Amino acid sequence: MAIKRPLYLVTDRLDLTNDAFLARIKAACQGGVDLVQLREKTLSSRDYYELAQQVKTITDQFKVPLLIDDRLDIALAVQAAGVHLGQKDLPVAVARQLLGPDVIIGATTKTLAQAQTAVSEGADYLGVGAIFPTTTHVETVQTSVETLTAIKQAVPIPVYAIGGLNATNVDAVKPAAVDGVAVVSAIMKTDDPFSATQQLRQRVIDVTKK
Amino acid sequence: MAIKRPLYLVTDRLDLTNDAFLARIKAACQGGVDLVQLREKTLSSRDYYELAQQVKTITDQFKVPLLIDDRLDIALAVQAAGVHLGQKDLPVAVARQLLGPDVIIGATTKTLAQAQTAVSEGADYLGVGAIFPTTTHVETVQTSVETLTAIKQAVPIPVYAIGGLNATNVDAVKPAAVDGVAVVSAIMKTDDPFSATQQLRQRVIDVTKK
Repeated sequence: MAIKRPLYLVTDRLDLTNDAFLARIKAACQGGVDLVQLREKTLSSRDYYELAQQVKTITDQFKVPLLIDDRLDIALAVQAAGVHLGQKDLPVAVARQLLGPDVIIGATTKTLAQAQTAVSEGADYLGVGAIFPTTTHVETVQTSVETLTAIKQAVPIPVYAIGGLNATNVDAVKPAAVDGVAVVSAIMKTDDPFSATQQLRQRVIDVTKK
Repeated sequence: MAIKRPLYLVTDRLDLTNDAFLARIKAACQGGVDLVQLREKTLSSRDYYELAQQVKTITDQFKVPLLIDDRLDIALAVQAAGVHLGQKDLPVAVARQLLGPDVIIGATTKTLAQAQTAVSEGADYLGVGAIFPTTTHVETVQTSVETLTAIKQAVPIPVYAIGGLNATNVDAVKPAAVDGVAVVSAIMKTDDPFSATQQLRQRVIDVTKK
């Protein structure tokens, strides 16, 4: 994670066909997303695995690291770059022990205490939010920009702001001086994900500039 | 799996409290179950992991191997003896590659073709069913005793009959000469799982005697 990766796409299949879903991810990669997290909560393990293989074919083509939400086994099965763990997923410490030092482990944290625990257990980066209300996550508890700022100041690893962020409102997180921004809808819900990604990435670079 | 392990308990929390659920598993271990599979389809990863830790404390006490349904990551996290994979879970071949040769991998197969695939991919045993209708599995497609027999005759690994089997009807699988019987309700749904297990194990030994 030494390379700066400011724009982080978290997927949502919405009601897209499989082909349309994959096409949006490809367009986002072409448009410049720096990280992709495949996030599935309802698929069977077999379907999650097969979808992850398809997505990884795309992300590999663009040399974009692929992270798998929640499931270490799926991440291992497709040789993903890493996993992203929420508070209801396996503990970061357990994941680190199973995956070793070289696999990326990200953690969703909503409070300073959660952030500090994730760092002490070996997380490589944090996702902090939801900054704004979001329709794509089951978990919609909000985190203030003040908390985001406090977390960013307290931890030595990259911090991504997440939750309802888009090109119009992303300026809101500028005071926190985060390392990047993670989005779902701003890319997945547009009919032109390529242009949306290009525009959003420029805004995110402005916002994260130190 | 060289040691004969004829009675295989697959768990179901039903509407039990956590304590009552664990108490039934403990009573089943005391009564003589030879294998336990923790099977959860709705818990978060964190809850599945924590429950698996609790169950493993019990099964370890009785030296009963614990298998985890579906989730390789949970199995790895609690150092379970192995995993059990259905047709909607990760392929056996992928699991074998990730887990190595020493971890037990079981597979649910409903047809001879599925059974032969599972064997060729490295399964250690097969669960075949449902022999009788069952209320505890989402999957209720039935498999005949004829298919069970054909599978048993075709594969070189232990075969367990599963699906609605209990002390009263388990004789039905005797013609198949299976290696063991797996049950859910016959143990989990009784108020005296210790006695139920003792009685059932004797019946299963009779039925599986060569």
